[in-house]
Amino acid sequence: MDTKTYVFGHTNPDTDSIASAISMANLQTKIGKYAESFRLGDLNKETKYALKTFDMEEPDFLSKLEDHSNVIMVDNNEFSQTVEGIENAHIQMVVDHHRLNLRTSEPVHCIAEPVGCASTILYKLYKQEEVSITPKIAGMMLSAIISDTLMFRSPTCTEQDKKTAEKLSKIAGIDLYQYGYKLLEAGTNISDYTPDQIICIDSKDFQHEDLKITISQINSSNLDDVFKIKKDLETAIEKRIQKENIDLFIFVVTDILEANSKVIVLGNRVDIFERAFHLQLIGNTTILKGVISRKKQILPAILEGIKQKIQI
Amino acid sequence: MDTKTYVFGHTNPDTDSIASAISMANLQTKIGKYAESFRLGDLNKETKYALKTFDMEEPDFLSKLEDHSNVIMVDNNEFSQTVEGIENAHIQMVVDHHRLNLRTSEPVHCIAEPVGCASTILYKLYKQEEVSITPKIAGMMLSAIISDTLMFRSPTCTEQDKKTAEKLSKIAGIDLYQYGYKLLEAGTNISDYTPDQIICIDSKDFQHEDLKITISQINSSNLDDVFKIKKDLETAIEKRIQKENIDLFIFVVTDILEANSKVIVLGNRVDIFERAFHLQLIGNTTILKGVISRKKQILPAILEGIKQKIQI
Repeated sequence: MDTKTYVFGHTNPDTDSIASAISMANLQTKIGKYAESFRLGDLNKETKYALKTFDMEEPDFLSKLEDHSNVIMVDNNEFSQTVEGIENAHIQMVVDHHRLNLRTSEPVHCIAEPVGCASTILYKLYKQEEVSITPKIAGMMLSAIISDTLMFRSPTCTEQDKKTAEKLSKIAGIDLYQYGYKLLEAGTNISDYTPDQIICIDSKDFQHEDLKITISQINSSNLDDVFKIKKDLETAIEKRIQKENIDLFIFVVTDILEANSKVIVLGNRVDIFERAFHLQLIGNTTILKGVISRKKQILPAILEGIKQKIQI
Repeated sequence: MDTKTYVFGHTNPDTDSIASAISMANLQTKIGKYAESFRLGDLNKETKYALKTFDMEEPDFLSKLEDHSNVIMVDNNEFSQTVEGIENAHIQMVVDHHRLNLRTSEPVHCIAEPVGCASTILYKLYKQEEVSITPKIAGMMLSAIISDTLMFRSPTCTEQDKKTAEKLSKIAGIDLYQYGYKLLEAGTNISDYTPDQIICIDSKDFQHEDLKITISQINSSNLDDVFKIKKDLETAIEKRIQKENIDLFIFVVTDILEANSKVIVLGNRVDIFERAFHLQLIGNTTILKGVISRKKQILPAILEGIKQKIQI
């Protein structure tokens, strides 16, 4: 038999990272390969809700790769957001929908598309391989699309994501909108998290030259609720900045009903954020109208902000 | 109408870089986009022979991109091997079969597969888009596969490359093997090049951390013929090392009949080469038995050689 292939998404996994790992491992198994899905961190409440709804088990936790492990990366291609040991792994395949930031020694199979969700690409791979999707797997993939596109309202969402979600909801035998709002709502409940935990729920690190930038995002149906504990969140952020030598920390609270975001921005390089969005923070915060996507709206603006500085 | 999309391969273009640029621009045009193919340097004799055989024109030379140009990269994804101005271009798509070494700000459409030739992937895209391939385009794509796989003998060659070449030869209405050997032979004629030119015909730069590594390759049907002018080649290489601050220059002469390579290795970091291939150079040279692929055999070994040094 083949040696096992490890399939996983990014650290601080969201629903897509778990769903696309599960569905990719399943697809590999169906075409005769030996593959297993893993999680690179604790699951958030939204993902747990999806797994419970479709009666699926949590993938096992993976803390470190042994040298020369076979790997399939889904929903991520950045080494700063993956498991320890990736440098010495054999990357067989990458399926992603984020910006590219990958350097390999050898040619690899990489499918990256600017769609709203990695599971949307996975759906096409099932079709290509002519493997049927079970209702449970369809339910997980559907959850990933709803989650990543905030029910089709993110600027990252494409017609393809929407059509795929509709097909998956039929396979899963579930009402897309009814289930979808329950899923998103499940993810907004932060009542039993500490401030330290809240800023880690969906946090991604980006290394750009010498700069370490962290963008952490949560969804909410009530911004005021979250900002009641603004002081505590700031303390937690400052602590993490010190501990991890972060230059710029952007904490994004996205209003899933209004499709706006309110941010807390800290670090010694808040100037990059202010330049990126052409504004001045007041009390470390501002509201970004219509901004809900980290990868399509916030990160590109920040990288542009860095570039402008370099050109001056 | 759309703004124009610039389609190009790598600098020091080989037959695949030209053929895949032409065929991608053609495909884009057929699906209603406004795209044009370009070359990023002078064409080699092999490519000229292919263009002449199939009565195609040379793509125009592109020296620099204007800001925000729309771009499709084929047969390359490394910024060190592309046109000036790429940093500020809008990369719409990447189709490649080399290692990945790309960092973008936004998600892009990237199809990378570990096959022998970018034109093999292009063939699949034509099928997906249900666009028919004309005999001339088929001839160019076929030439690219023959060239990149050294008539299916390179370790990079897959079953897919071979099958695709067979299909393309039928569309082009040409005898695959008869034409193939003529094509490869056309590329080996270096009689009217100066040593300075010979080492530039198919030269690729790789930037790895602080190291600048250049791997230049030519094909030959008679190694002795090339090594008659070894001293002159060494002088040319030394000159280029000085001028471009190259740490390691590997000049590879590949015997297309025997499928071996003889190399000249110079620079202040020849230790990396020696460690990579577990050997000691004698008079700056050695023969690498069975080694004919820069990307699948030489570059990965070199990167491994660098890594070993770091771990010591």
